Amino acid sequence: MALKVYADRLSQPSRAILTFCWVNGIEFEEAQIHLAKGQHRSPEYGVINPMKQVPTIVDGDFQLFESHAILKYLASKYGVADHWYPADLHRRAKIDSVLDWHHSNLRRGAVGYIFNTTFAPVFGLPLNLQAAAEGEKLLSASLEKIESFWLQGNGSFLLGNTEPSIADLSLVCEIMQLEVLDDKEKERIMSPYKKVLKWVDDTKKATEPHFDEAHTALFIVKEKFKQQRSAANL
Amino acid sequence: MALKVYADRLSQPSRAILTFCWVNGIEFEEAQIHLAKGQHRSPEYGVINPMKQVPTIVDGDFQLFESHAILKYLASKYGVADHWYPADLHRRAKIDSVLDWHHSNLRRGAVGYIFNTTFAPVFGLPLNLQAAAEGEKLLSASLEKIESFWLQGNGSFLLGNTEPSIADLSLVCEIMQLEVLDDKEKERIMSPYKKVLKWVDDTKKATEPHFDEAHTALFIVKEKFKQQRSAANL
Repeated sequence: MALKVYADRLSQPSRAILTFCWVNGIEFEEAQIHLAKGQHRSPEYGVINPMKQVPTIVDGDFQLFESHAILKYLASKYGVADHWYPADLHRRAKIDSVLDWHHSNLRRGAVGYIFNTTFAPVFGLPLNLQAAAEGEKLLSASLEKIESFWLQGNGSFLLGNTEPSIADLSLVCEIMQLEVLDDKEKERIMSPYKKVLKWVDDTKKATEPHFDEAHTALFIVKEKFKQQRSAANL
Repeated sequence: MALKVYADRLSQPSRAILTFCWVNGIEFEEAQIHLAKGQHRSPEYGVINPMKQVPTIVDGDFQLFESHAILKYLASKYGVADHWYPADLHRRAKIDSVLDWHHSNLRRGAVGYIFNTTFAPVFGLPLNLQAAAEGEKLLSASLEKIESFWLQGNGSFLLGNTEPSIADLSLVCEIMQLEVLDDKEKERIMSPYKKVLKWVDDTKKATEPHFDEAHTALFIVKEKFKQQRSAANL
């Protein structure tokens, strides 16, 4: 049985997996799980992933969830170019460090901010301005750490690397979620971080046309939110 | 230069690193960073770890932070027994999955609950009962997932393994932080999870006497909190 990827393209870790597979020519079948329709809560999907989240992969009889674990598994299993997840002990450890840091910093901040300002009503929940403010604080602090620390060095990518790793892909897909915000709002949050903006662009370029393909659904939703905002302001 | 571990034994990820090194006969020098004294915010430590957290290791001229990344690095560098972080692709991927899950679930829940009910005043912050309630909810949901999913199988350890991995050590050290709570409170939270209780005990036994050595400081603080509570109730 071919590799199967359970994903929702509106989920940033899902997009990282899809992009990674396409860029590296890993053949797979995409099974769409629409979070907004509650498909992740179905009993069938609960057997695939008891945490009821996306992404999940099924590779033969092997099931795996958590996007970082999936990226590491795929990089090893399918023998992709070394720069994605280097075999060298020290280089690999640094990428592990970025990815672990991501969980409690950029990811938590971005999700906290974007969900509580924008996505909550899609899931039938109210906006939560206090949680959004806490999320924004952590998001901005995380962007500052990427700008001043993780993007040190001569290369265009995290850790001063000259080619992208799975960490670049994971973190940039997270930052792309800010596309659903009002443009001025996104500009307000992102504009202080010039190196981050360049790095996002470099990561896109290094993974085109697949990066754009993975993000098409997000851009459609961005337009919907834009229209909703315009209608609300009429 | 020998391996140096910057740690605070009141920090659960620090204890995981110390225990791992002792159990596996990895020689190191421990540099104590007292969080309650703000030593993690010193300019000197900022050079070692710009995130100003513990643990961090310095191994020759290689610096690394994030405890999961450190455990993986040490397991590979020092050639410990395979069960700690198996070379087998599938077994390793599952351990990566548990560790990634840990960040946004057990760890976030436990820290949210314990910090906001107990530790906050040590850092000059008020107790935050709303944050504590959110933390407890996530903590309990995480314990339930460990009980019903991660501890499936015949072995005594996570993923049905018969010997402990770095994931067992990391998660059990997290749960040990509940020791600082009032005994009845800890009992209320933990008692529904019989398999979790047995697994915590099995992990302790598999890593004694080092596990206890790493936790002595925590037990001293537990007694202090106990005395404070008794004095407040007089």
